[in-house]
Formats: sequence, C-alpha cells, structure tokens
Amino acid sequence: MPHFHIEYSGNLEGVVDMGALCEAIRAAAAQIETFPMAGIRVRATRVDHYAIADGNAKHGFVDLSVRLREGRAPEVKQDAIAQIFEAMKDFLVPVMATRSIALSAEMRDIDAALSPKCGTIRDHLTAAD
Amino acid sequence: MPHFHIEYSGNLEGVVDMGALCEAIRAAAAQIETFPMAGIRVRATRVDHYAIADGNAKHGFVDLSVRLREGRAPEVKQDAIAQIFEAMKDFLVPVMATRSIALSAEMRDIDAALSPKCGTIRDHLTAAD
Amino acid sequence: MPHFHIEYSGNLEGVVDMGALCEAIRAAAAQIETFPMAGIRVRATRVDHYAIADGNAKHGFVDLSVRLREGRAPEVKQDAIAQIFEAMKDFLVPVMATRSIALSAEMRDIDAALSPKCGTIRDHLTAAD
Repeated sequence: MPHFHIEYSGNLEGVVDMGALCEAIRAAAAQIETFPMAGIRVRATRVDHYAIADGNAKHGFVDLSVRLREGRAPEVKQDAIAQIFEAMKDFLVPVMATRSIALSAEMRDIDAALSPKCGTIRDHLTAAD
Repeated sequence: MPHFHIEYSGNLEGVVDMGALCEAIRAAAAQIETFPMAGIRVRATRVDHYAIADGNAKHGFVDLSVRLREGRAPEVKQDAIAQIFEAMKDFLVPVMATRSIALSAEMRDIDAALSPKCGTIRDHLTAAD
Repeated sequence: MPHFHIEYSGNLEGVVDMGALCEAIRAAAAQIETFPMAGIRVRATRVDHYAIADGNAKHGFVDLSVRLREGRAPEVKQDAIAQIFEAMKDFLVPVMATRSIALSAEMRDIDAALSPKCGTIRDHLTAAD
C-alpha cells in the first residue's frame, strides 16, 4: 500500500505521456508523509472500448483509484487525495485546454484484516544496480 | 461519476462486440434519471490470462462494476443496477445461448469526501464537431 | 462470485507464467469450502505504465483483489484470503528470490442487493466438450 491505479481512454494514447503521469503521481505521493515510499505502486491501463457522456468519440477520461490500508484519519486522507489530484491536474491542464476530458479520482480504505502482503522491494532500495 | 467498467475474458474477443456493448450500457444509463449524462463513462477491458470454474478454457465471463457518488437511496440504486443489468443481458443473450458465460455486475458507492473531479466534457457537449 | 483479479507490472511478463498463476489460484480457491466452484473467476492483467517506490524500473508488483458476495463470517474470510495468499506466494517465491517484487492482496465484500448475476457455466460443467 498505497496503490494508485489510473484508467484512461485509448484516444489519449500518444496525447498524454502516461509513464510520465505515473511518475508525477509517484513523486507527489512520496512527498506525502502518510504514504510509506516503499509501498507506493502507481500504474496506468489503457481502455480500448469505451462510451462517454453523449457517446461522442472525441470525449476522453483519466480516472484514478487510490487504495490504502485503513487507519488514517479522514482529514489526512482528504489532504492526501487533494495533493495527488492537484499533481494529476497540473500534469493534464495543457491537454485539457483543447480536448474534452473528464478527470476524476477516488480514495478508499483496504480492510487491514484481509490484506496480506510481503515483498522484496525494501531489499532492493539501497542496493547498487 | 458514474463509472461503468466491464472486464471480459479474452475468448469473447471477436464473439461479442464490446464497443457496442459499451454503447448499449451508455445509452441505458443515459435513460436513468439518477445518472447525470455528462458524467457517464463506460469502458471495457479484455483479460488475456484467466482460469474459470473447473478450469475449462471454454468458459468465459463478462463482469461489470458500477461506481457512483454516494447519496442515492438504496431503491434508486437497485432500480438503476437492475436496468443496466437488463440491458447487458439483452445484449448478451444470443451469445449465451451457445456458450459458457458467467455474467455479473456490482454497484458500489464512492466516498464523496475523497473523490475530487474536474473536466471539460460539458464544454464539448453542445459544440459543433 | 468470487472474483479474483491480479494486476502485475509489465516487467514480469515472460518472467512469471501468469496463466499458470491464475490456474494455481483457481485450484486453491476450488479447495476452499466457502467458494462455490462454478463461480470462481480468476484473471490477470498486465500494466505497461507504472512507477514503484523510489521509481527504479527494476521494481515490480503482483497485486490480487478478491471480491465476494457479503455474508461470510470474518474468520471464514481471513482463512480464505490467507490460503489464497499462501498459494500465490508459493508460486512466486522462486522469482522473488532474485527480483524486487511487492506482493499484495485484498479481499472485500460485494453488496448482495446490488450485484445481479446469471450465466450458463453450470450448464457446461458436466457436458462433454
């Protein structure tokens, strides 16, 4: 935890650099005290079939879901999602100036009793490549 | 909001027209009073790795997740998911007559305090293309 | 229900046999009393854009979400997710020995009043192929 998952409409491929957007969100998340850096996982997937609003093919969307282990105070979560959304919006403002895009985010808790995890990332954080 | 997200097994590619299914769900959702038309985002993603029921490769699935901002009454949500599911089922009945397919849907609320959004779709709804 | 959905970073493609991992989870789930076999749907999707921990491209992840119809007791769900996670970990231990991988799982309930379903899988379970 935390998990950040972006879905975006296929008509934004080649218009938005999604790898760079993932990195921008990762960097923003790493600055937020409540998120342990080693647990940050940002990803983006393109959807090729979609139908938006009135069905016009020119519409697009970028939708972010954030999931994190339960236990943070509501105001901590509100601050965190606001900062992440700001980073996402800053990244997308230029393309939104000319295109029809819906931008959205959601944050929700993960049940701590039902979310096992393990891993080797911490072992590889300080090792030379 | 609302978000509609279909996942389907890769063995249905070329069997079901997923773009048309997205459009059928969009059109059904646009008829439902509780869904603001401009906020409708339907998408479908294919999964290429899967294992279903007894593991037989002939099985397939279509699974829809609907997420919407909290605040609707339970009966409003039940009516809405029932109508959406009916539209999805109507679309898939012909292919289900001969194939092994599990069809499912889920609707859940999004925490209003943790779901920022913005966008330019409304600016593009009435503009000439 | 139940639904099992894996997301994995694209740098694990060709490193982990994701079809076999789906099958391992399916087989483990089929052994667990609380899961009706005909309802098991395991799938895995690759994500091609991602940014993990400190942003080093060598990091990878495998993240499993399990969704099931509400009504199981907490201890039944804890036992179930523990067994599934064990099967996933056993499968991935060899590759985790040398690589930087975060492994995680989550289980959550689906609202029974908002989750219609139907299907033809049961009709095809005993039929000869």
